[in-house]
Amino acid sequence: MTAAGTAQIGVTGLAVMGRNLARNFAQNGYTVAVHNRSVGRMESLVAEHGDEGSFVPARTMADLVAALERPRKVVIMVKAGAATDAVIDELVPLLEPGDIVVDAGNAHFPDTVRREAALAALGLHFVGTGVSGGEEGALNGPSIMPGGTVEAYASLGPILERIAAQVDGSPCCTHVGPGGAGHFVKMVHNGIEYADMQLIAEAYDLLRQGLGASAGELAEVFAEWNTGDLESFLIEITAEVLAHTDAATGSAFVDVVMDAAEQKGTGRWTVQSALDLGVPVTGIAEATFARALSGSAAQRAAGRELPAHTTPWAVADRAAFVEDVRRALYASKVVAYSQGFEQIAAASAEFGWDIDRGAMARIWRGGCIIRARFLDRITQAYERDGALPLLLADPYFAAAVGEGVAAWRRVVAAAATHGVPVPAFASSLAYYDGVRAAGLPANLIQAQRDYFGAHTYRRTDRPGTFHTDWSGDRTETEA
Amino acid sequence: MTAAGTAQIGVTGLAVMGRNLARNFAQNGYTVAVHNRSVGRMESLVAEHGDEGSFVPARTMADLVAALERPRKVVIMVKAGAATDAVIDELVPLLEPGDIVVDAGNAHFPDTVRREAALAALGLHFVGTGVSGGEEGALNGPSIMPGGTVEAYASLGPILERIAAQVDGSPCCTHVGPGGAGHFVKMVHNGIEYADMQLIAEAYDLLRQGLGASAGELAEVFAEWNTGDLESFLIEITAEVLAHTDAATGSAFVDVVMDAAEQKGTGRWTVQSALDLGVPVTGIAEATFARALSGSAAQRAAGRELPAHTTPWAVADRAAFVEDVRRALYASKVVAYSQGFEQIAAASAEFGWDIDRGAMARIWRGGCIIRARFLDRITQAYERDGALPLLLADPYFAAAVGEGVAAWRRVVAAAATHGVPVPAFASSLAYYDGVRAAGLPANLIQAQRDYFGAHTYRRTDRPGTFHTDWSGDRTETEA
Repeated sequence: MTAAGTAQIGVTGLAVMGRNLARNFAQNGYTVAVHNRSVGRMESLVAEHGDEGSFVPARTMADLVAALERPRKVVIMVKAGAATDAVIDELVPLLEPGDIVVDAGNAHFPDTVRREAALAALGLHFVGTGVSGGEEGALNGPSIMPGGTVEAYASLGPILERIAAQVDGSPCCTHVGPGGAGHFVKMVHNGIEYADMQLIAEAYDLLRQGLGASAGELAEVFAEWNTGDLESFLIEITAEVLAHTDAATGSAFVDVVMDAAEQKGTGRWTVQSALDLGVPVTGIAEATFARALSGSAAQRAAGRELPAHTTPWAVADRAAFVEDVRRALYASKVVAYSQGFEQIAAASAEFGWDIDRGAMARIWRGGCIIRARFLDRITQAYERDGALPLLLADPYFAAAVGEGVAAWRRVVAAAATHGVPVPAFASSLAYYDGVRAAGLPANLIQAQRDYFGAHTYRRTDRPGTFHTDWSGDRTETEA
Repeated sequence: MTAAGTAQIGVTGLAVMGRNLARNFAQNGYTVAVHNRSVGRMESLVAEHGDEGSFVPARTMADLVAALERPRKVVIMVKAGAATDAVIDELVPLLEPGDIVVDAGNAHFPDTVRREAALAALGLHFVGTGVSGGEEGALNGPSIMPGGTVEAYASLGPILERIAAQVDGSPCCTHVGPGGAGHFVKMVHNGIEYADMQLIAEAYDLLRQGLGASAGELAEVFAEWNTGDLESFLIEITAEVLAHTDAATGSAFVDVVMDAAEQKGTGRWTVQSALDLGVPVTGIAEATFARALSGSAAQRAAGRELPAHTTPWAVADRAAFVEDVRRALYASKVVAYSQGFEQIAAASAEFGWDIDRGAMARIWRGGCIIRARFLDRITQAYERDGALPLLLADPYFAAAVGEGVAAWRRVVAAAATHGVPVPAFASSLAYYDGVRAAGLPANLIQAQRDYFGAHTYRRTDRPGTFHTDWSGDRTETEA
């Protein structure tokens, strides 16, 4: 059992993501031991791609373990949940203290915390790792967000950094923090992705309705936007998708796609975590609920006849409107990212993860779905102030958003007037106006709570907690 | 142990809520056995209120159990969580099959499901019960939402119905459904309460800023509103709070209350559950996040200097503006309630609770925080169609909201233009426009998801699930 093999890393779970990760390791010069529960997948990988590098076929989990150098590094890439636990349970008895188990699936971070603690008790390292970029990224360079111990990262990190996407000579991989930090950050990445996609969809809907423009015309708008501040993978593929013609009908492709968005759960997890942490991630929440609404067939059928009470919409200055929408999209996007980074800060403080937010923006610049020029600006903001409480208030972003606030107001007002649903644009503007407000009407809410539930309130003019005897003589007492 | 006592009901946990519930039972003619972990509270209750009815003092849990008729009915009113479990653990060994344990605290519904299953295995009934109305309601008639078995309700229900608030001769108490149904419905009640309070706060903020009005002037507006469709406890107390003068400063009371709203978790639970159920409760979510934002001191301090880019606001026709805000408030409120009732329907289907939504609206008409004239209309809507998929689309509400849609659009547009944060108004309008939309831009989201993650899409022109080979020749295959 202690006779060490020659493979530097092992991968178990060879569906498309695991298969591509294994090929990526091999293409980067590592000897990779490969294993899959049903042997056929392992055999086909070696048969089809064996010439890309050095693979060690493992027919059993014991073979996999035996093939590895020590400390052994085994990457698990199976379905999150029970399947991951089953693989861990099979693998762990075969390992020795100091070995490293890497979960590269989409685990929910509390599961990662639980698994790391369980394996640590056995002297094993457990590294919950976010991997973003889909099949393409897994093969050619994903963004990698590993959690776990510093010790594990010292031995595993260089391998992951080598297979990650590279931007400006820097790998899109860094040690995120201990425990569940890696999967947490990947979750928030996905939550931000939900917001980003919803904002793009709202911009598209506004342009479509405001200009009466075709998908093809809007493809040109997004392609143009991709040359400026909005440059990003999501804007780029939006232009591509809008330019695509459906072969079956000759219509624009998007016009034949059903308008019911699906989801796999990470947006939901992000919002649920933000609620626990008390961080208002309104952009992500609206994006998640917008998907749910789009798929609520019975409600939409029942609501179809609700009165619109709108006036016909004729945008007079088309170029100015396009520019207004672009600025509103940029400003709303900054809010969504700001909220996501506040959530990372709150979790980092809550769980003691000490996450470097600037480094997170840096490793998202390549490989992942939200890769964008824009992320450099976020890294720079945290380089200016690592403890920045509100990304939106960083001088660069405050100025950049500031230039677009008047346009943002016009766009949200126009959407309300003309009946275009822009939940994420509107919510982001409300957040902006809320966070900059000298006074919020939460004073009335606290007064109501004291009235009906004796929940007490604080005063603006002196410290302490107070209660008014609402049902009696209305005197105030200090609680 | 089988010698039955004479008390018809017992209460353990005599802090203010339990104490008032016990007095309510006694005032309604029931003999109540009373117990508290520290005996002093029990003794002071009997000493101060013993003349209100028939109390049986119990110094120990065993005394409490011995004092009760069979099947024994014990109401637990202690802190949710570990304290409740501790009381259950102490109580259960003293009971016999058929006895009924009632948790009247604010338990999270999954805990109630767990406890009911555990006690059912011992032959005991466990009734998780929502109780709304605060101290005042507990004493004089709360709204009561009991879950649990039909058998338990047959024996317990008449007692609860007698102590509940009565409206038009009907008790604000009914059997909600099995398992965690009672606590679930109470949770959604509280979520709706969050939305209702936030909407009122936004209306107040708009009027304050738009009119430059004082709290006293606005008290008159709310008092006037309380004579119409908005008539409700929350509008009533808003008028009272706004009219109240702070004795210490001579200022309007609300103007000395700090604008940082607190929360105890039920809003958060509601939104987290809605995310699991896939029901868009955007009004409740925005209300919950608005409280979080109001308390985010560091973010608000950092955001204070963000540029407003607004023009001065001078409302020309003040009466018309007040009426617009009233209509916007009413419409947004209908959306929030509609979303909450959709959530109850989704949970009822998911967990097999068979909840009668019309009955829920009926038992909320009195005793609880969201009691309102308006709720009769909801009961009537579900009497017209018990399976109504969208409350908003009930003919009465569609017409009532329809009358205010133009005003709602003007108010949300004005808020965006003038920089007043109205997250719940804006989100509710976006939901309204989303649920009535012939097409949502979710088609673009599905296309993006297929592009970067091969997540597939459906088509509008034929059934099936499809994928386009985006990185290859862009042919479409049926998945």
